[in-house]
Amino acid sequence: MEQTNKQWIFSATPKAGPLQADSFRFEESSVPELKEGEYLIKNELLSFDPTQRMWMVADSYVPKIPVGEVMRSLALGSVVKSKNKNIPEGTRMTGLFGWQEYSVRDGNDYFPDNLVPEGVSNTAAMSIFGLTGLTAYFGMVGVGKIKKGDVVLVSGASGATGSIAAQVAKLQGAKKVIGVAGGSQKCDWLLRKAGIHAAIDYKNENVAERLKELAPDGIDLYFDNVGGAMLDAALANLRLNARVVLCGAIATYDGTSDPAIRNYMSLVVKRASMKGFLFSDHMELMGEALMKFGAWLANNEIVYEVDLQKGIENAPQTLQRLFAGQNLGKQLLEV
Amino acid sequence: MEQTNKQWIFSATPKAGPLQADSFRFEESSVPELKEGEYLIKNELLSFDPTQRMWMVADSYVPKIPVGEVMRSLALGSVVKSKNKNIPEGTRMTGLFGWQEYSVRDGNDYFPDNLVPEGVSNTAAMSIFGLTGLTAYFGMVGVGKIKKGDVVLVSGASGATGSIAAQVAKLQGAKKVIGVAGGSQKCDWLLRKAGIHAAIDYKNENVAERLKELAPDGIDLYFDNVGGAMLDAALANLRLNARVVLCGAIATYDGTSDPAIRNYMSLVVKRASMKGFLFSDHMELMGEALMKFGAWLANNEIVYEVDLQKGIENAPQTLQRLFAGQNLGKQLLEV
Repeated sequence: MEQTNKQWIFSATPKAGPLQADSFRFEESSVPELKEGEYLIKNELLSFDPTQRMWMVADSYVPKIPVGEVMRSLALGSVVKSKNKNIPEGTRMTGLFGWQEYSVRDGNDYFPDNLVPEGVSNTAAMSIFGLTGLTAYFGMVGVGKIKKGDVVLVSGASGATGSIAAQVAKLQGAKKVIGVAGGSQKCDWLLRKAGIHAAIDYKNENVAERLKELAPDGIDLYFDNVGGAMLDAALANLRLNARVVLCGAIATYDGTSDPAIRNYMSLVVKRASMKGFLFSDHMELMGEALMKFGAWLANNEIVYEVDLQKGIENAPQTLQRLFAGQNLGKQLLEV
Repeated sequence: MEQTNKQWIFSATPKAGPLQADSFRFEESSVPELKEGEYLIKNELLSFDPTQRMWMVADSYVPKIPVGEVMRSLALGSVVKSKNKNIPEGTRMTGLFGWQEYSVRDGNDYFPDNLVPEGVSNTAAMSIFGLTGLTAYFGMVGVGKIKKGDVVLVSGASGATGSIAAQVAKLQGAKKVIGVAGGSQKCDWLLRKAGIHAAIDYKNENVAERLKELAPDGIDLYFDNVGGAMLDAALANLRLNARVVLCGAIATYDGTSDPAIRNYMSLVVKRASMKGFLFSDHMELMGEALMKFGAWLANNEIVYEVDLQKGIENAPQTLQRLFAGQNLGKQLLEV
């Protein structure tokens, strides 16, 4: 019996401006037969990540998504059929399973398929223990070299990566962690739930002024998820030997806001550095990160949030939701 | 008998735009008597450096020059009178002696006064062995970590720092050194005298296009003296793990050109870093640098140029000359 597979096809490279739903086309196809070595994943959760906008536009650290193929996306699912002796039915896995119900896999892709161990919930596997949580740890520890006594600024601080980055900074001994987020609800969450020291509401406050008040001697470490004007404000408030960690630049991905920064001479005056990184650059810290996350969770020292949407038919709207900043924590969708 | 001292007083903080002569006022004063521990320097050479424009505008790594004080400047001179037992008459020294004929010193200043050893000419002491030559070495070796096989780009490549930086890169084993300079005369000098591999004339060529031709696989190390559009073009042509060394941003100092850069997301995609530094950050390399410069000069493996203007009355015009890019090599003035 043929099994139908609901899929979202990447149908058109987006133009500058907010992401439109017409970049995707809904289709139903049939699930192909497995070849030797392959296994069939039934998707349970889709992951929504700012980097997907980059994948849709141009070759970067991975090739652009080809128009006409299933929309590329991290996901979590279970193996429902297998012709691979190492991957039995019932195995939970994460990988680039895409916006579809079923995915035929052989383990080869830009990111490897990963097993999800027992005892780890689906949402934890896709957030704190997933790409975004690990990216936060790698950026804060491996790239930013967070140390005791640092004054730390994190933008996109209520997002999937920023919220973990801000808490990692605090747990690693930062003297002050300042988070920037949009709206009082997110800022309240940062102060009350995540327990960081200060929050700036960029939608209702003057970021540059508040930054001067909160960090009069400047910032030792800035973890940037936003780019553009936010990055420029941080550059204007660096302390000697500051480190700027570029994780992403969500403010600039839609191609309409000007990404310009002008205050980079403060990198000279403050002998500071600005460094970009990708998840895959610090795999040597993976074990350390997972163990610390486990211990911090067990001690209730770290929290994570997920924004869980429902129904494969809502995948395009959920991606728009992420870019509109409507999510608190990791943006997911239950297939 | 009182000795007169011709001086240029810093009389007004410059506005945005090309430096005007009315920022300075010519005065004659008398040389004060020396106190115990002081010595009197008679200036022989004044040094002209882009960073002086920064000193005139705002506090940075040193305080802004106070209006009403002698214009701050590195200089070389000889001790003509001394009440300091460690500094005998006749000693040649470099230091922040300012735009004046005589300077009363006690050894305390933002940069220390330094002895010039016998056998080193005045012009060598003020160029290759001086602040600009050492800055080039520290930036290329200490910050940029130049290594064999690197493809290197240097902007301001015919200037005092850039010309040495480009040659240091070549001598340390770079596979290809590309210099950017303004005008065919400077580019000829880079190719014929400095012996670097390629030159781009930014006044007559499209820098971004030429860069793609000359470094199709991208740049490993960019040593930036210019900032703005030049920096942005380099950012668009980085190789994996590239290092961008920010030494200065002469294109942006006059406050009229837009310093904006927009291509910093390539620091993420290429896992690259951008780091600013100052001369004083790598004093541990001073001995190594001076010895290598000495050996390279002895073997005729490195060249340096000076542009020597004359007469203390021409100090303001000589600073304008530097910012107009009329100099080849180190800009100096014989007092």
